[in-house]
Amino acid sequence: MTAETATSEDTGVAAEMLEIGTHARAAARALANAPTEQKNRALMAMARNIRCSAASILGANALDVADANRAGMAAAFVDRLKLTPDRINAMAAGIEAIAVLDDPVGTVITGWDRPNGLHIDRVRTPLGVVGIIYESRPNVTADAGALCLKAGNAAILRGGSDSFRSSGAIHACLARGLNEAGLPMEAIQMVPTRDRAAVGEMLAGLGGNVDVIVPRGGKSLVARVQSEARVPVFAHLEGICHIYVHAAADLDMARDIVLNGKMRRTGICGATETLLVDRAVAGTHLVPILEALAAAGCEIRGDADTCAAFPAAVPATEEDWSTEYLDAIISVKIVDGLDAAIDHIETYGSHHTDAIVTDDAAAAERFLAEVDSAIVLHNASTQFADGGEFGMGAEIGIATGRMHARGPVGVEQLTSFKYRVRGTGQTRP
Amino acid sequence: MTAETATSEDTGVAAEMLEIGTHARAAARALANAPTEQKNRALMAMARNIRCSAASILGANALDVADANRAGMAAAFVDRLKLTPDRINAMAAGIEAIAVLDDPVGTVITGWDRPNGLHIDRVRTPLGVVGIIYESRPNVTADAGALCLKAGNAAILRGGSDSFRSSGAIHACLARGLNEAGLPMEAIQMVPTRDRAAVGEMLAGLGGNVDVIVPRGGKSLVARVQSEARVPVFAHLEGICHIYVHAAADLDMARDIVLNGKMRRTGICGATETLLVDRAVAGTHLVPILEALAAAGCEIRGDADTCAAFPAAVPATEEDWSTEYLDAIISVKIVDGLDAAIDHIETYGSHHTDAIVTDDAAAAERFLAEVDSAIVLHNASTQFADGGEFGMGAEIGIATGRMHARGPVGVEQLTSFKYRVRGTGQTRP
Repeated sequence: MTAETATSEDTGVAAEMLEIGTHARAAARALANAPTEQKNRALMAMARNIRCSAASILGANALDVADANRAGMAAAFVDRLKLTPDRINAMAAGIEAIAVLDDPVGTVITGWDRPNGLHIDRVRTPLGVVGIIYESRPNVTADAGALCLKAGNAAILRGGSDSFRSSGAIHACLARGLNEAGLPMEAIQMVPTRDRAAVGEMLAGLGGNVDVIVPRGGKSLVARVQSEARVPVFAHLEGICHIYVHAAADLDMARDIVLNGKMRRTGICGATETLLVDRAVAGTHLVPILEALAAAGCEIRGDADTCAAFPAAVPATEEDWSTEYLDAIISVKIVDGLDAAIDHIETYGSHHTDAIVTDDAAAAERFLAEVDSAIVLHNASTQFADGGEFGMGAEIGIATGRMHARGPVGVEQLTSFKYRVRGTGQTRP
Repeated sequence: MTAETATSEDTGVAAEMLEIGTHARAAARALANAPTEQKNRALMAMARNIRCSAASILGANALDVADANRAGMAAAFVDRLKLTPDRINAMAAGIEAIAVLDDPVGTVITGWDRPNGLHIDRVRTPLGVVGIIYESRPNVTADAGALCLKAGNAAILRGGSDSFRSSGAIHACLARGLNEAGLPMEAIQMVPTRDRAAVGEMLAGLGGNVDVIVPRGGKSLVARVQSEARVPVFAHLEGICHIYVHAAADLDMARDIVLNGKMRRTGICGATETLLVDRAVAGTHLVPILEALAAAGCEIRGDADTCAAFPAAVPATEEDWSTEYLDAIISVKIVDGLDAAIDHIETYGSHHTDAIVTDDAAAAERFLAEVDSAIVLHNASTQFADGGEFGMGAEIGIATGRMHARGPVGVEQLTSFKYRVRGTGQTRP
């Protein structure tokens, strides 16, 4: 390809993306004032269309899967990409679950009266236009599109090129659902090119027409989005989650929570990666917990004290403390009390999700107050870090940033707000 | 200056600013867990120090003012820069008012129980490190530093080079107050150089050590910050505020509100810039309102219909509809009903503050719902766009963005939140 060709193609993508952004902004304005009933009608129609179009979605997916196999993609990758009738049903059910959630738009967050008689309400409004950049999972198309719609936002979806046909078939069902409910089809748009330049355009904000970007995928995708985006990003780079077994921890509870936090599912961001055991109970608690982990197939990487007490452990390196394994591996350290545990978490953690196991209420309060993570837990597994488990119905992702959204990002956090002031002719003195 | 010198100086500023950022982050961690009583003690000490150091603050300010006069700065500029004993007292009183505000940190925003017995609270936490970039007004040093402290945030202040000595003298009082209360003096740092490269470093985020930037100053400063910042920004570029006199508006109320909205103070962001009069009442309402404005010394720039009805008006150009005059000038347009008024505001407005005057409740509701501005008012003056008037006690600025903060940004919106989960040994099935 010559330089001129590249330039002309880039310009083509830029122009096409700008048009998508402009349409999204116009659709967002219409959506902002759409009644709840109409949005729900669109969601139910989308779910119905997905169920009715299962055959064509599976057909499109089969082509994507065949390409991935031909390209020698890893089995885990192909598994994430592959759709089945069950997965399609789950996708439709997920949209139906979003339809029955409360509509946040227009709800009064708080309101108060001023001495001069003005009444001020803080009211939820949509955020505007949400850009979602994701990788191989085609179901993100349905989840993200539906969540954005519920909160009155227009969505611009940029799926992975490996799932291009699957996502396209799902998107067609969403667009028809919008149309059937009388909403603009541009409310959920899919980037119609595999050209990676489209991602760069989205990160630059499409001429002010993207309000927030949500990356859904592996660490390299999130890192690229975080470093290049010129608009706010809801994301977590990684979940280096800790469980601290405090001096006053019940052994059985600690063992159950650590085993669940690490081994229930090792590949999710809320999986525990590091176990901190208080020196005061290391003699009684450490070995039983590590035996349970080892029996479940977990590799133990310990500090010197841990290795001394549990010879099956391999020595942890400095790097282990800041590693998100996403695998059946755990790093283990003996710490000298609560302050040392908090220090370790603040030094090596990723501000995602961290837990303390203790029967000492005061120690728990300090941990919950002082650990600066999106989710802090007392006597519960880190694997509860999930919008569904929080009762939010669905999440577009988990955020570790401190601005606007934090923790599981559900429909409510996809909104902004405005102040609505009612007077009777007041002027300012 | 040779190229090498420039490079070495730039590196010097970058290194110095990075150190400021690192110290701010460390101070923020300490502040996050500081008790309310200790923060308030520091605030009261700051106010006391400012009152006691009035003479040295005035001395420093006199040098800044002399330089500004020598440089031939405009009278309005020198007025903003100049401190008086009254202004110093007001600054101290402002800090005392912040001390008596409720502490948002640690308050539970909302909480709920899950069927599995987990109790989830959403709790306010500080944002972290706030960078404030401002121009000539030295009192921003005190206001912004105090507000950030109350919300548990570290502040990095970068004042205008014209007020460098004034701000420095005020900052010294704040730093002593922190120290007297046993809080880290790095909780409120002032950039110790007039070098403009420092601003660039702050906008780049000081190695991840700035969470949000608040620009306080004219349009060119805000525009630069918004276009260059790599971190979130709380700001408004301009306040093109509208008053729409609806078909069902009471004439006396409309006249009072327009006169106040435009003329009470013309230089603030909540001043009305455009008057929209419904054609249905143009025959009765337009001339009396414009006569009142003209009598108060306001220049009228009208569309053709306005000029026909009020010959003293000069014809408005297309540019007038998107101009923030910040002066005794108003643009006036006759519109065909509510939809046309909303369309005009959405097309030309700046999403800051817009008002409707009407006795028709349904029209008011539609206006309040459909106008996408940070503040929408019914039957009240746009000049109420102010944190103090909202009862927030103080504001660090007014934001028109849709993320995190919007409208007057008070102490509460200088916070983030986290989820605190209390269990009794729950593991995830």
